[in-house]
Amino acid sequence: MADCLFCRIVAGEIPADIVAENDGAVAFRDVNPVAPTHALVIPREHLENVAEIAAKASATLGDVLGLAAEVAAKEGIAETGYRLVANTGRDGHQTVFHAHVHVLGGRSMGWPPG
Amino acid sequence: MADCLFCRIVAGEIPADIVAENDGAVAFRDVNPVAPTHALVIPREHLENVAEIAAKASATLGDVLGLAAEVAAKEGIAETGYRLVANTGRDGHQTVFHAHVHVLGGRSMGWPPG
Repeated sequence: MADCLFCRIVAGEIPADIVAENDGAVAFRDVNPVAPTHALVIPREHLENVAEIAAKASATLGDVLGLAAEVAAKEGIAETGYRLVANTGRDGHQTVFHAHVHVLGGRSMGWPPG
Repeated sequence: MADCLFCRIVAGEIPADIVAENDGAVAFRDVNPVAPTHALVIPREHLENVAEIAAKASATLGDVLGLAAEVAAKEGIAETGYRLVANTGRDGHQTVFHAHVHVLGGRSMGWPPG
């Protein structure tokens, strides 16, 4: 989608600090990090949220969550621990309507999660 | 696993307030809710975290995240929005080592997510 920020990152039209990628997904650093490691993992395909990935593109679900695990390993937080967060809609605090999973680590995450 | 709390919920040995279920996953209410809707979606199979689901049981990933979307619909938060949270390890604040995805909604979720 021409007007989608994340589609433009996938297309290379907008620069991003890419952490890892695979056939179905791309991971890059959040521009407003809230933890020492804070990356976003997005499907290359424009799907609005995680529910839509699950409903329409189940192979992509594995690409996205597999890449999240790879990001954790690369960032050295697989052993210390990390949090995955996916926001859907207004109450979830979703701000970009191209599905993305936050990978947060490098500090102890608090509870409740927002 | 005989000593896993969530395996015992799946087996029906420990009562839980079941919200929805499918072939690969079960959703039940968190006993310490931090939002008006707060359910946990777990794979029936004992897998330690989301990374292990993604690595070993990709079909289960669809069962878990598909069921999370179903829970959101049943709870009337699919439109208002919700947050999915999966904690891995110490820094992630994981307390039960049987993979689970929190479904949180019914209020505006804050940022950062913990």
